[in-house]
Amino acid sequence: MSPADARTVATGLVTTDTWGTFSHGTSLLAHYVTSLRAGGIDARAQPEVVEEGPVWAVLDGHAAMGMVSSSRAMELAIAKARTTTFSWVGLRNSNHFGAAGYYAVMATQQDMIGAALSNVDPNMSVPGARGSVIGNNPLAYAVPCDADFPVFLDIATSAVAASKIMTLKSLGQDLPGDYLADSEGLPTNKVGTWPVGSSLMPMAGHKGYGIAFLIEVLTSVLAGAGVLSASKSWILSPPEHGNLGHCFMAFNIGNIMPIEVFKQRMRELSREIHEAPKAKGSNRVYLPGEMECERRAEALRNGIDFPEWVKASLRGVARDFQITPCPGLE
Amino acid sequence: MSPADARTVATGLVTTDTWGTFSHGTSLLAHYVTSLRAGGIDARAQPEVVEEGPVWAVLDGHAAMGMVSSSRAMELAIAKARTTTFSWVGLRNSNHFGAAGYYAVMATQQDMIGAALSNVDPNMSVPGARGSVIGNNPLAYAVPCDADFPVFLDIATSAVAASKIMTLKSLGQDLPGDYLADSEGLPTNKVGTWPVGSSLMPMAGHKGYGIAFLIEVLTSVLAGAGVLSASKSWILSPPEHGNLGHCFMAFNIGNIMPIEVFKQRMRELSREIHEAPKAKGSNRVYLPGEMECERRAEALRNGIDFPEWVKASLRGVARDFQITPCPGLE
Repeated sequence: MSPADARTVATGLVTTDTWGTFSHGTSLLAHYVTSLRAGGIDARAQPEVVEEGPVWAVLDGHAAMGMVSSSRAMELAIAKARTTTFSWVGLRNSNHFGAAGYYAVMATQQDMIGAALSNVDPNMSVPGARGSVIGNNPLAYAVPCDADFPVFLDIATSAVAASKIMTLKSLGQDLPGDYLADSEGLPTNKVGTWPVGSSLMPMAGHKGYGIAFLIEVLTSVLAGAGVLSASKSWILSPPEHGNLGHCFMAFNIGNIMPIEVFKQRMRELSREIHEAPKAKGSNRVYLPGEMECERRAEALRNGIDFPEWVKASLRGVARDFQITPCPGLE
Repeated sequence: MSPADARTVATGLVTTDTWGTFSHGTSLLAHYVTSLRAGGIDARAQPEVVEEGPVWAVLDGHAAMGMVSSSRAMELAIAKARTTTFSWVGLRNSNHFGAAGYYAVMATQQDMIGAALSNVDPNMSVPGARGSVIGNNPLAYAVPCDADFPVFLDIATSAVAASKIMTLKSLGQDLPGDYLADSEGLPTNKVGTWPVGSSLMPMAGHKGYGIAFLIEVLTSVLAGAGVLSASKSWILSPPEHGNLGHCFMAFNIGNIMPIEVFKQRMRELSREIHEAPKAKGSNRVYLPGEMECERRAEALRNGIDFPEWVKASLRGVARDFQITPCPGLE
C-alpha cells in the first residue's frame, strides 16, 4: 500500500480508538491484513469516479481498502456541496470501511452536516423471516455545533452491536433482551452458537428493518454494489471481493443561513438538553457523540488507554510482520 | 378554508385511512377543528417561500393547516429535484401535518425517492434525563419499486407510538416492554397517569434519541421553527401557534441511472426478501409499507372498514356542524 493510503487508514483507525470505539479502531488491522493477503482487499487499487453530475457521483472502489476509497468519496461529497449545498456520492466494489462516523465528522470540519451509510452482508433477521436476510446496515451523521466538538451518531440498525454479543458470549452470559433470532426465527436472549444458527434482531423491530432497507437502497441499489446476499463478508470470505456499497452525503449549511446563526441555534438546543432534569442515578445528559468527543480530548492529552484485547491483537500483527511493538504495547 | 385547501386535507386524511393507519387519518379531524376554532391553526393562511436556492427552500407556514403547507412544500421539493437531482425544503410555523408517509409517497408518483420529517413538541425522554426533553420526531421515506406500489416506512422515533399506549391505557393493560420513563426517569411498563408524569422512551435507547436529534436539526434548527420546548402541542395548547418544523426531500433517481434499471434492482431486492425462509408461525415476509398498500388496494375495491372509534369521532364532528353523516357512519 502506498504510504499516503496507509496513512489514511491509520488516521481513520486511530481516530476511532480515541473515541473509545475500540471495536472499529486498530483492532480491525489484523482482519484487514488477513483480507489483504487473501485477495479480498487490493492494497494497490484506487477508487475511480465512473459517473457524475453536479450534486452526485458514483465511484467504483475496485476492491481497494474501504477507508481509502471512502475518504476519497467523502472529500468529493464535501467539495461538491460547497457550491451545490447538498451532495450524494455512492461507492460500489468497496470493503469494510471502519467506523461510519469517521466520514460524517470529516464534513463538520468544513462546517457541513455529514452522513455516511453502508450496506453489510446479511447478518440480521427481519420480521416474519428465519435466518439472516439483510445486513445491520450502519448509519452515521455529524452536525457542526457551537462547541469544540461536533454532535454525532454512529449506529448499526441491529438491536445491539455484534461486538457486544461477542463479549457476552465469551463471558458465557445471556443477553439483556431478546436481541437475537434463533434458528426458527424466534426472539431469544440466548447467545448459543451465534453467529452460526442465529441472526441479529433489528433495533425496534420493523423500524430497524425499515431503516436498514432504506440504507440498502441508498448504498447498494443506487451505487450498483452487491444487494443483500450479493455482498460478501470479509470475515467469513477473506479471498472474495465484498462488493459492499456505501454512500456519503454533505449538506453545506452556510448556503442556507449564516453558519453563526446555525451554531447559535445549536447552542440553544444543546443547552436545553444539557439542562434537562436528571433521571434518578444520573448526573448528566449527553448529546449524541459527546462521550466519544470527551474521550478523544482525554486521549489527545494523555494517550489512548487501550484495553488488553486490542493490545494483544496489535502485538499479534507485529509478530506476524516481525516488527518490534512500541513500548506501550509490550 | 378554501375548497382547494379542504380537498388537500381530505385527500391526505382519507389516503392515510386507506392504509389502515387510522390514528393519523380522518380521526384527526375533530382535533383539527378544535385547533382551528381556538386559533392555533389559521384556516385562511397560505405558506410562503421566504428563502430559496436551486436545490433548497425555506417556507413559512404562517400557522396554516399542516397538510396544506406540507403538500405545497413537497410539491416544491419534487419540482426542484427534477433538474437538480436532490432537494431539501424546510417549513417553519407549521402545525401537525398528519402522516409523514403521505408526503414521502407523493415523490414516488414522480419516480423519485421521497422523505418527510417533523419535529414534535417534547414528549420523549432521553438517556439520563427525567421528563420530556425532545419530541418522538417522526420520519418517513418512500422508494419507487417495480410493483404497483412503493416501498415506504413511516415511524416515530419512540419505542412505541403514543396511540398504542393510549389503547392499552383504555384497556387497563401494562405495556409489553419498558416503553415509558416514569416520574424519576426510570423505565417502566406501567401506563399509570401517562402522558402526565411520564414520557415516551426512545426506540432502541440512545439510537432513537440520536435519530430524533438529527430530525430536530434538519427540521426546526435549519428551517427556523421552534426548537424543543419552543414548539407547542396542538392537543394541549389548541389556541397557540405550534411553530412546528418539517422538512421534505426528493431524490430524482432518473438523473443518476435509467429508472428501469433502478426498478429492476428493486425487484431483485424485493424478491430476495419475499423468498426468505419464514419464521415459525409466519407464512410471509413483508416489505416496508406492503401491508399498508394491500389494505389500500382493498379499500379502493370495497371501501374503508373504519373501526367504531373513528366512526364515533366523525359522527361527533358531523353533529357539531349539524351535518347529516353519510349512511356508513350511522
